[in-house]
Amino acid sequence: MIGKLLRGAGILCIPALWSVSICNAETPTLDRTVVSLENHEAAIPLATQDRAAGDKLAEIKAKHGKRPNILWLVVDDMGYGDPGCYGGGAAIGAATPNIDRLAGEGLRLTSCYSQQTCTPTRSAILTGRLPVRTGLTRPILAGDKLTRNPWEDEISLPKLLSDAGYYTLLTGKWHVGEPVGMRPHDIGFDEYYGYYPAQKEISQRFDERRFPDLVNNPERSRAFEAIAPDNHLTHGFKDGRTEELKQIQSIEDMGRAEKVLADFTIQRIKELAKEDKPFFLEHCFLKVHCDNFPNPDLGSLSAAKYYYKEAVAEVDLHVGDIMAALKEAGVLENTFVFFTSDNGPQMDGWPDAGYTPFRGAKGTTFEGGVRVPGIAYWKGVISGGRQSDGLFDLLDLFGVSLKLADIPTSDLPTDRYYDYIDQTSFLLQDDGQSKRETVYFWWGKELMSCRMREYKVHVKAVLPESTHMHIDYSTLVDVGLAPWLFNLYIDPKEQSPVGHRRNAWLATVLGKLKAHGATFKKYPAKEVGL
Amino acid sequence: MIGKLLRGAGILCIPALWSVSICNAETPTLDRTVVSLENHEAAIPLATQDRAAGDKLAEIKAKHGKRPNILWLVVDDMGYGDPGCYGGGAAIGAATPNIDRLAGEGLRLTSCYSQQTCTPTRSAILTGRLPVRTGLTRPILAGDKLTRNPWEDEISLPKLLSDAGYYTLLTGKWHVGEPVGMRPHDIGFDEYYGYYPAQKEISQRFDERRFPDLVNNPERSRAFEAIAPDNHLTHGFKDGRTEELKQIQSIEDMGRAEKVLADFTIQRIKELAKEDKPFFLEHCFLKVHCDNFPNPDLGSLSAAKYYYKEAVAEVDLHVGDIMAALKEAGVLENTFVFFTSDNGPQMDGWPDAGYTPFRGAKGTTFEGGVRVPGIAYWKGVISGGRQSDGLFDLLDLFGVSLKLADIPTSDLPTDRYYDYIDQTSFLLQDDGQSKRETVYFWWGKELMSCRMREYKVHVKAVLPESTHMHIDYSTLVDVGLAPWLFNLYIDPKEQSPVGHRRNAWLATVLGKLKAHGATFKKYPAKEVGL
Repeated sequence: MIGKLLRGAGILCIPALWSVSICNAETPTLDRTVVSLENHEAAIPLATQDRAAGDKLAEIKAKHGKRPNILWLVVDDMGYGDPGCYGGGAAIGAATPNIDRLAGEGLRLTSCYSQQTCTPTRSAILTGRLPVRTGLTRPILAGDKLTRNPWEDEISLPKLLSDAGYYTLLTGKWHVGEPVGMRPHDIGFDEYYGYYPAQKEISQRFDERRFPDLVNNPERSRAFEAIAPDNHLTHGFKDGRTEELKQIQSIEDMGRAEKVLADFTIQRIKELAKEDKPFFLEHCFLKVHCDNFPNPDLGSLSAAKYYYKEAVAEVDLHVGDIMAALKEAGVLENTFVFFTSDNGPQMDGWPDAGYTPFRGAKGTTFEGGVRVPGIAYWKGVISGGRQSDGLFDLLDLFGVSLKLADIPTSDLPTDRYYDYIDQTSFLLQDDGQSKRETVYFWWGKELMSCRMREYKVHVKAVLPESTHMHIDYSTLVDVGLAPWLFNLYIDPKEQSPVGHRRNAWLATVLGKLKAHGATFKKYPAKEVGL
Repeated sequence: MIGKLLRGAGILCIPALWSVSICNAETPTLDRTVVSLENHEAAIPLATQDRAAGDKLAEIKAKHGKRPNILWLVVDDMGYGDPGCYGGGAAIGAATPNIDRLAGEGLRLTSCYSQQTCTPTRSAILTGRLPVRTGLTRPILAGDKLTRNPWEDEISLPKLLSDAGYYTLLTGKWHVGEPVGMRPHDIGFDEYYGYYPAQKEISQRFDERRFPDLVNNPERSRAFEAIAPDNHLTHGFKDGRTEELKQIQSIEDMGRAEKVLADFTIQRIKELAKEDKPFFLEHCFLKVHCDNFPNPDLGSLSAAKYYYKEAVAEVDLHVGDIMAALKEAGVLENTFVFFTSDNGPQMDGWPDAGYTPFRGAKGTTFEGGVRVPGIAYWKGVISGGRQSDGLFDLLDLFGVSLKLADIPTSDLPTDRYYDYIDQTSFLLQDDGQSKRETVYFWWGKELMSCRMREYKVHVKAVLPESTHMHIDYSTLVDVGLAPWLFNLYIDPKEQSPVGHRRNAWLATVLGKLKAHGATFKKYPAKEVGL
């Protein structure tokens, strides 16, 4: 039985390569992909659409005399349902007019996928490779010691872009390694300005109300500092210069940190816009990752008043200011902007937490954990008011960026597997269709599930032990006799599997999962001790 | 204990009038309402807003030389999440471009409430009174015999409007009584063209795949016809003329019925637009109530292909055509349009069913059962792109209609209680705020819950026995020791009550519930045998 064969298809126990002919045979299946390079994820061929997008890009580059800037706005742990344009906003107590405007004047993706936690997503979008390939399979936490530097043999997007003449800058949260060799300015960014860890890693040192056992015990506090993630605002450069600027030492400092980052990004946009080089700027918000504290200088920003909601509203405020800076700097029409979140909402901090209409949350491979807001905006290039349910994996941003920067695929090494797909034509063309046929979901080193068109098959699942709890109170389960197949059109909340009873395509989707597992035979996963 | 006192506050067991001073005392509470008439629901006074809306209306009436037309578009059982502008649409396999356009060019309400089933909502919006007051507390089903005609002493909106010089027409589904005296053209409509019951009541006679025990047993079929709801297209007039036009006798007839209704409404709009009288037209779709069958003349309309999805797409198509007819007839700028659904999605027919992001579905007083799409559109009067989470109860449409037609409250009898609030200024003014402080939720004759601002308190709840099942497989439960209080901003899915632990306002909301219950002392509920 297919179900039986696939159970246990984690990276360490991918079963022997069993027929994948269902995907490649001439029998019609759901699979429309065509392999172009053996070590690259196969895409749906849309030659006419690609050509049209290529022509459009060439015109824009000619008009501006340089390649476009690239700006990513990455929120931490924002739920799919938090922004107004995704069903939340004012309806749940925190209006997001600036994010909504971005969506209204751009392309709103409704099937945009992240990894199920932070570090995996952040590393995947910078490498174009799934976390299980790079070894960055879960968030790096206090005291973690890796057995090797996962970055040492990765070729990051900022490095590729920098080598190709872009100025590359990351502002904000990093969380993909603090030691020398793993910092943003070590792995390819020309410049870094931000904080390495998630908010909670910093604020637990002084958040007496949540962590009295740590904060009020000097001995433990001292011991913790030996393993604690860094709490400095760090300014680093590719040549190794690294300044530790101010430290976050109080609730108020933490509340103010977001604006410090936004102000820096705005300042740098104004400066970089004057340069000959195009820029790649990844702005990574600290908020709305737990634990959130309001910025005392900004006053109340939300109707709901909960700190999480204040944080949503503050992020929205900064999105507005950053977009205004692009406009003021005269580069709005030459900048590709992408707004997203690194995973679903972290619900364990509830009631001070986010909202997804879907099942599950951060830390699961149900839709609640991995379906995120995704808005592509480019004034004059992407038509306003577009929306699409075409599949988009955030690691496709790697491919889009290469395309925008004229970096050919042939510049990439052939000794590793690339999971990204170049979705430039999907995002740019008025009637653009997604070139991605499948999204694969991993949970650490476990291959969990696959979405193909509106179907999603789970071979394993993460089930919470109680309401709202998904990371701290969840367990991995084997799905049992038969993989769960959900039709996300009729069951967006993944409540009732239809695999055995109602669907003809179970074998097709499982065949894709199987073929995906098989790529690890020739291109083994990297183990870094996480 | 408050919780204890309130438990069992159904109409037959409302507890003795216990202090409601919390609402009326000078101590500040959440309650902003002021009583104007003893037998009318108290509203939040917004005199400036009301005056501005009054001036605006006067101008419009002067400009057009008559009072505005009123058009309600009422879908049957459409889920909050089904239209694209409420998070569904193409993302769940059935694009709704026309409904989305209506929202984009009008006011999209995100806290718009129906009753939890069909007959209650449909009667409430036509009487301005809660179902428990009129006796129409649940859907009338095959074989039901009422002990008295609930309409005989009700003064319906179409009667008021007709008496005041409007031409009043209901097209489509009725489902508030088939006997003489209870038909639309008996209770105040000048004209009726449609089918009395829900689709399922008709289609079960020939839907062999779902009801073989009925369809394939001639004896039972004959017996059922004695109690079965009518399956004729009926054309009736206030003077009593009633024609039974064609019968729905097959799956194909059922699939085609919706378009027959839309064509009629479109034709009548063109005719009525030429008359001196303004018109009130309530267009009640048959779809998307189970069971749905595609219209064989229209071809495939949805990406998902499930019949429910085809029905959503067909409703959207007709919405577009009806709006186009208003425009062609030259009355777009003199017609107030309101689009909504009569309750949450009916999920028992899953997988051929709708979508709500909320907990529960049709038949429960959780948000899934009662929060519905609500779009107010009036070209040139309601500004496009507005959205509001201000509370709106669909029975407020009664008050809005009186206002538009210049019918003074003094025309209403004083021997009964009115639950509607005149929300004209909320809907019409650019920054309009809701005048409704609370929405009360009943389940049959049981007082269940109350929403006040972002808080919702349940004293009883309806819990389903299994996934997706809410009407056919649910039971009424007493909430227990303490009423459940949800903050809908932080917990839109009503998963974790915060009453005892986190909220200061439990007593205020319970005080309102209590005061609501007390209105039945002076104005007793009507019993009609349902």
